Amino acid sequence: MIGWKQHVQLVSEKARLCSYDMTALSTDKKNCFLEYLSEILIQNEDKILKYNQKDVTKCQKLGYSKAFIDRLFLNAERVKKMSGALKNLISLENPVGKVIQKTTRPNGLIITKVRVPIGVIAIIYESRPDVTIEAASLCIKSGNCVILRGGSESVNSNEILVECLKKALEKAGISSDAVGFISKGGRKAVKYLLSLDSLIDLVIPRGGESLIRAVVENSKIPVIKHYKGVCHIYVDKEVDVNMALVVTLNAKVQRPGTCNAVETLLVHRDIASVFLPEMAKLFRQNNVEIRGCHETLRLIPDAKPADESDWYQEYLDLIISIRIVSSVDEAIAHINKYGTKHSDSILTSNTKTAEKFLNKVDSACVYHNASTRFTDGGEFGLGAEIGISTDKIHARGPMALEELTTYKYLIYGNGQIRT
Amino acid sequence: MIGWKQHVQLVSEKARLCSYDMTALSTDKKNCFLEYLSEILIQNEDKILKYNQKDVTKCQKLGYSKAFIDRLFLNAERVKKMSGALKNLISLENPVGKVIQKTTRPNGLIITKVRVPIGVIAIIYESRPDVTIEAASLCIKSGNCVILRGGSESVNSNEILVECLKKALEKAGISSDAVGFISKGGRKAVKYLLSLDSLIDLVIPRGGESLIRAVVENSKIPVIKHYKGVCHIYVDKEVDVNMALVVTLNAKVQRPGTCNAVETLLVHRDIASVFLPEMAKLFRQNNVEIRGCHETLRLIPDAKPADESDWYQEYLDLIISIRIVSSVDEAIAHINKYGTKHSDSILTSNTKTAEKFLNKVDSACVYHNASTRFTDGGEFGLGAEIGISTDKIHARGPMALEELTTYKYLIYGNGQIRT
Repeated sequence: MIGWKQHVQLVSEKARLCSYDMTALSTDKKNCFLEYLSEILIQNEDKILKYNQKDVTKCQKLGYSKAFIDRLFLNAERVKKMSGALKNLISLENPVGKVIQKTTRPNGLIITKVRVPIGVIAIIYESRPDVTIEAASLCIKSGNCVILRGGSESVNSNEILVECLKKALEKAGISSDAVGFISKGGRKAVKYLLSLDSLIDLVIPRGGESLIRAVVENSKIPVIKHYKGVCHIYVDKEVDVNMALVVTLNAKVQRPGTCNAVETLLVHRDIASVFLPEMAKLFRQNNVEIRGCHETLRLIPDAKPADESDWYQEYLDLIISIRIVSSVDEAIAHINKYGTKHSDSILTSNTKTAEKFLNKVDSACVYHNASTRFTDGGEFGLGAEIGISTDKIHARGPMALEELTTYKYLIYGNGQIRT
Repeated sequence: MIGWKQHVQLVSEKARLCSYDMTALSTDKKNCFLEYLSEILIQNEDKILKYNQKDVTKCQKLGYSKAFIDRLFLNAERVKKMSGALKNLISLENPVGKVIQKTTRPNGLIITKVRVPIGVIAIIYESRPDVTIEAASLCIKSGNCVILRGGSESVNSNEILVECLKKALEKAGISSDAVGFISKGGRKAVKYLLSLDSLIDLVIPRGGESLIRAVVENSKIPVIKHYKGVCHIYVDKEVDVNMALVVTLNAKVQRPGTCNAVETLLVHRDIASVFLPEMAKLFRQNNVEIRGCHETLRLIPDAKPADESDWYQEYLDLIISIRIVSSVDEAIAHINKYGTKHSDSILTSNTKTAEKFLNKVDSACVYHNASTRFTDGGEFGLGAEIGISTDKIHARGPMALEELTTYKYLIYGNGQIRT
C-alpha cells in the first residue's frame, strides 16, 4: 500500500496527463457522462445510503452538531435530487471551443482567442456529499479534470460517490483519471496538494471562512475565494417607500441562511422617520431582530444597539443591522469598508444617485431597485454555479461553466517570421 | 518619521480609497495624464539623470555586473523613449465601462456584465527604472491604482520618476494617491505588503524566476506570473522544408534574449535526415550552439550531447537543444512535460496534425506555421503589454489593458423580489 504523499502525487499526475485529452472532448461525450451518472446514482441508492449511514453514525457518536449531521446526511430524496440536477446540466451549453476573438494581422497571421478548459481543478470542501457530485459534474462539463478532497467525516459517502463518478466516466468513454479523490493523509495531504503548482491549475475551497483562509495561507496554486456575503441595501431619500419595504423584507426573510440575504440596511436620514417605523413593524411581524445605530434607536426604541462588530457580521439568520446615513456617499463608503464585495442594492427613484452607487460600490453584483437575493447562477440564467466568487481576479459573482474555463491563442500562419 | 510598516499600510490604504474614484475616470482625464507625464519626463530629464547617476555609481562601487548596470542605467535617449511610449498608450482604447453582456430575465431584471478596473495592483520588480513608468501608466490607463516596489538599487531613480508620475496625476485632476511607492523596509516591507489582501487586489511580479517564486511563496493576494519561456518548434514529417528552415532560424536568432525565442527544436524522425543537416548549416553560420539527443548527434556529429536538464532550460542565448521524435504525440508530450505554457509552434502541411497539436499543447500561444517570436502585445495588436502571462487564471499570454481589468454585474430592476 502506498503512503499518503505518493497517493496525492499519483492522483494529481494522472489528472494532469488526463487534462490534455479533455480539451478535445465532444459535448456528446460529456452529456453521456452526465446521463449515465444520473442513472448510476439511482441504481446505487441503497449502497450510497448504507455508506452514508456509516459516516452519520460515527459523527453522531462523536457528538457533532445537528446542523453538521444534516449537511452530511443523505436519504432517497436527496439522492434523487442529486441525480435530477445532472439532467439540468445536460441542457447547458458547452463553453469549450468558442472563438472569443479573431483578428487578421497585417502580416497575414490569423490570431484566434479560443475558450479552453482550465485543466486540473482541486475542490477542497467540508462534509457535504452533494458537493462531490455537483463540483465534479460541473468540472467535467467544462472539460476539466477535478481532484476532490472532502471533509474526513464524509469519507465513506465520498468513496461510493466517486466510484459512481468513475463508472459513469468509463461508460462514456472518458478516462476515469478525470476525477481524482484524496482519501488519505488528512491535513498533511491537503497541504501537500496545495504545493503541487505544476500539476494543479486552480483550487476552489468550498466551505466556511476558516477553511478558505487556511487554503489561501498554504496554497502556491491560484485560489478563487467564495467568502461570506455581508450584503447591504441602501434606501435613498428619493424612493418609493412601499417598494422599499417589500424589497428589503424579501432580501432579509425569504431565505436568511443564504449568502445573498441582506445583513445591513442603510437608510438616508431624510426618509428614516417615514420608512423605518414601517419597516420595523414588518420586521417584528417576521421575527427579525433589529440592531440599530444611535439614531435608529430613536426611531425604533425596542431595537438593540448595534456595535462596531455588527457591521462586519454575516448573521445568516433573522437579524438585521440598521444604520442611518446622511448621503449616498456615506452609504457607499460604509459598504466598501464593511462589505465583502458580494451583493449590494440601492433603492432610489433618482437615476443619477443610482448611477453613482452602481459605479462606486466595489462588489460583484450591484443592484438598482431589486432584492440582493437574485445573486445566483440560476437566477442569472447561467444554469448552475459552483459558488459566488468574492474575488476580483478571473471570476466575480456567480461562477458557472464559463468561469471554469480560460482561453488560449491559436495563431495560424504560412511561414511568417519576425523582422 | 513613520516606520516602514506604517508606510506600507498608509500607501496601501490611500490607494484602496482612491480606487473607488478611479472607476468613473473619463478617457480624457487618463489621456491628459499620459500627455502631461510624457512632457514632465522630458522637462525633468536633467534631474532624472542626476538621480539615476547616484544609483549607478553606488552599484558600480558595489561591483554589480555590467548587465545589471545596463538595465539600471538611464540616458537622454532612454528618457525620450519612455516619454514616447506614453504617446502610444494615448491612442489605445479605454477598456473600462464596456458592456460585455446584457440579458433581460423573465422577471424583467436587466443584468449587465460591465468591464471595470481591478482596483489596486502591486508591481514588484527589479532595478529597471523604465518599468516604473511603463507599469504605472498601463495601470492608470486601465483605471487601476498602482503600488510600485522596485529593487532597492534603483531607489533614487524611482523616487524622481514617482515624483513625475504624481505631478502628472495632479495636473490631470487625478488624486496622486493613485500611484503609491514603497521606498522603505526592504524585504520585510514586501512581505508585509503581500499580506494586505483587503487593500490590494492583484500582485504582478516582474523579473527573474526567483523573484516571482518568492512573491508566490509569501503572497495572500492573487499573483499573475510571467515565468520564463521554454518555447518549442516541432517540425512534422509533412512539411515545406524551406519554410521550416527559415522559421526555425528566425525563432532562434532574431532576438535570442527574449522569452518568445525558441529553445528546443523537435523533429519528426522521417524528416530528420533531410531537415537537420541543412538546419545545422544555418545554425553554424549564425553561431548557434547545438545540443542534441543521441539520434541528432548521428546526423549532426559536431553537436554537443544534450542531457535531461537541457530540455528544461531557457537559454536566452544562441544555444538550441534538438530532439528527434517519432510522432506528433511524442512532440506534444515533450512540450507539456518540459515547456512553460508560453509559446510553441508546429510546422506542418497536414492540417489534421496541426489541429491535434493546437488542441493538446497546453500553452498560452500555439502556432501553426509561424515563428514563436510573435508572442508580444504589439504583434498581437494589443498596443502594449505588462508582460506575458504563463498562468492560466484570469490572463494568458500577452497581458495588456483589457487583462488589467475585471468585470462586475450591474442589475437594474423595478422592485423585483425573489419568491
